[in-house]
Amino acid sequence: MPTVSDRGRIMPDSPIRKLGPLAEKAKEMGRKVYHLNIGQPDLPTPPEALNAIKNIDRTILEYSPSEGIRSFREKLAKYYHKFDIDVTADDIIITTGGSEAVTFAFMSCLDPGDEIIVPEPAYANYEAFAIVAGAKIKSVISDIEDGFALPPVEEFEKLITPKTKGIMICNPNNPTGYLYTQEEMNKIRDLVKKYDLYLFSDEVYREFCYTGAPYISAFHLEDIEQNVVLIDSVSKRYSECGLRIGALITKNKEVKQNVMKFCQARLSAPLIGQIAAEASLDADKSYMLNNYNEYVNRRKFLIDGLNRIDGVYSPIPMGAFYTVARLPVDNADKFCAWMLSDFEYENQTLFLAPASGFYTVPNSGIDQVRIAYVLKKEDLAVCLKILEEALIVYPGSKVRVQASTVAGA
Amino acid sequence: MPTVSDRGRIMPDSPIRKLGPLAEKAKEMGRKVYHLNIGQPDLPTPPEALNAIKNIDRTILEYSPSEGIRSFREKLAKYYHKFDIDVTADDIIITTGGSEAVTFAFMSCLDPGDEIIVPEPAYANYEAFAIVAGAKIKSVISDIEDGFALPPVEEFEKLITPKTKGIMICNPNNPTGYLYTQEEMNKIRDLVKKYDLYLFSDEVYREFCYTGAPYISAFHLEDIEQNVVLIDSVSKRYSECGLRIGALITKNKEVKQNVMKFCQARLSAPLIGQIAAEASLDADKSYMLNNYNEYVNRRKFLIDGLNRIDGVYSPIPMGAFYTVARLPVDNADKFCAWMLSDFEYENQTLFLAPASGFYTVPNSGIDQVRIAYVLKKEDLAVCLKILEEALIVYPGSKVRVQASTVAGA
Repeated sequence: MPTVSDRGRIMPDSPIRKLGPLAEKAKEMGRKVYHLNIGQPDLPTPPEALNAIKNIDRTILEYSPSEGIRSFREKLAKYYHKFDIDVTADDIIITTGGSEAVTFAFMSCLDPGDEIIVPEPAYANYEAFAIVAGAKIKSVISDIEDGFALPPVEEFEKLITPKTKGIMICNPNNPTGYLYTQEEMNKIRDLVKKYDLYLFSDEVYREFCYTGAPYISAFHLEDIEQNVVLIDSVSKRYSECGLRIGALITKNKEVKQNVMKFCQARLSAPLIGQIAAEASLDADKSYMLNNYNEYVNRRKFLIDGLNRIDGVYSPIPMGAFYTVARLPVDNADKFCAWMLSDFEYENQTLFLAPASGFYTVPNSGIDQVRIAYVLKKEDLAVCLKILEEALIVYPGSKVRVQASTVAGA
Repeated sequence: MPTVSDRGRIMPDSPIRKLGPLAEKAKEMGRKVYHLNIGQPDLPTPPEALNAIKNIDRTILEYSPSEGIRSFREKLAKYYHKFDIDVTADDIIITTGGSEAVTFAFMSCLDPGDEIIVPEPAYANYEAFAIVAGAKIKSVISDIEDGFALPPVEEFEKLITPKTKGIMICNPNNPTGYLYTQEEMNKIRDLVKKYDLYLFSDEVYREFCYTGAPYISAFHLEDIEQNVVLIDSVSKRYSECGLRIGALITKNKEVKQNVMKFCQARLSAPLIGQIAAEASLDADKSYMLNNYNEYVNRRKFLIDGLNRIDGVYSPIPMGAFYTVARLPVDNADKFCAWMLSDFEYENQTLFLAPASGFYTVPNSGIDQVRIAYVLKKEDLAVCLKILEEALIVYPGSKVRVQASTVAGA
């Protein structure tokens, strides 16, 4: 048998999906599994999108242009204008999900051996896409004690080498829910300008900012317009992850030219997805507001609930719909697997994402999990109860150890 | 401005799509452009697929499993059984088009510097996907005079080095329409076995074989089951290129494990596309037969017509819906561009794909074009007329030169 690629071998399993088989087994045993592992909202897709799909009056489902359907790109440009992001349809390339946007950004800007600096914990698949491009992630660790604020600029500068080509951020942040401040974004801007780096900015959660603090887009930063590659997706905004529609936005003509080659090679993004995503831009204001309010409530309820559990700590996320919490466990990877394979509370259990997979530095976030608040409050209440019970009986629980120490005293 | 990637820079423009802007300009000038450049059939998508889309009764368009929807994979396995391809749902991974299947096959099996041997002319994007994976294509040239039959095995063996990891074929072939014989497939099998290579086999055109000769799948070959990675797509079979649904099929567990990592990183293939593609498998027999008969007629009409034009030669394709024809021109790249920018016949023109882009060896196929017979007979008749007229007035035409020589004599 021929050998498989090293690239594939070194590619980490997705921390979001790798425990999937255990979850399947739990379900086969008749257990209800609450999915807090994945950013799959339970909120409805806008009726505008569903109707667009139902009313498709084509007889042939053809390729669309490699850069995406023009009318959709024009409408997207108008959408960005509402956030003071000054782009035109020509700056926007439609991709097969935000995933493809990140992949094509890396493929177009980075060569094997090139380095990018990423504040961690970070969306796990950035690492996967960097491996695909042969690029290396150098990470600066943000601290749960600081609520995962941007690490000091000096930490970034220490990592800069002749191979450094860019900085990748996610704002509002997945997995931490952190929202970068104007001051922090200015610091990033200064670094980008000083070292002439790319700024890859994943802003798919822009609609979900909860503290009144402004959302600062990379395109709001002065003098680095040519350096910015913005990543977007309709998946989370409109609860339509299954469409696989994202966008890559750049004003840099050379980057665009490179990206288009990758786009042409894969022919086109999904047609029906583009039609539905375009229609989603007409979603009623009340649709967006209802979803927003729902997340506001869930966030408050979840974070309060987490911090009330013995030994658990979650900073207060300012955006997106995730939090990274610290659990009183020896090892969150083991704990998450154990919850699926060995634990049940009233025949229910939880699927959480171990946070270790959101760090590239070994042994980071070892007692942390990412929790997506994508379920309704009543479900989150059950989830909190399950977590609390699990932490009492889990063999590697520090709560349990403390409890038995007390009992033994 | 930071530099863009060399990978992107060396990536060739798609020969199928690079003249697109010229075609757009011609259309803006009010010209009708016949698209024979791209394998976008004008035949209808099965009503089963369109109805499945119209009847989607979900309120949330969620992610699907990274390996694809189970019921679809099971139904696909049954479809393959009809072609004596003995696979199960577990051997099948659903991808975002055949494009992603090839990309993931290369990413999972090849490391930078690894080599694969490809008989050329070949589907142009294989080269693009090889560049994505950092792999090198070594090509054996098949000859238009032999109808693009498989080059002698010795030609392959000459290219084998310690870096050679696989052979990539397309059968029935895009762009040539060639269908490999049992004898040729056995030779490929022997090579694969002797050198323990991967056999990447793109078989998306299996439904379109016109000569009564059997379609031999890579999975029909003995003793190399673990070496085969089969590429498939519903795009051409059901005229649903816009869905972006393909499949990668392997019985090699290690390959599958690697592929799944890339699948998980991009989360999932398009949901609606999978639903529609699954429904397409129920397409009525008469649907498939009508399409088949349509291509049979177009093929006869087109090839006859081409060979009647002064100086034009096309072998008779045995499958798929393309042919590579030789034109009496100095340079087919120039000719194809000229047809779009400078020529019109009764305010109409043709978009053909220069064949040079289907070769990685420079100066190959310089007077060849790929023609997709994806338009109805009446349109093809107009196309033939346009081509004939164009060849008379094109400045680099050998017909014209001969004609004026005669005139001058």
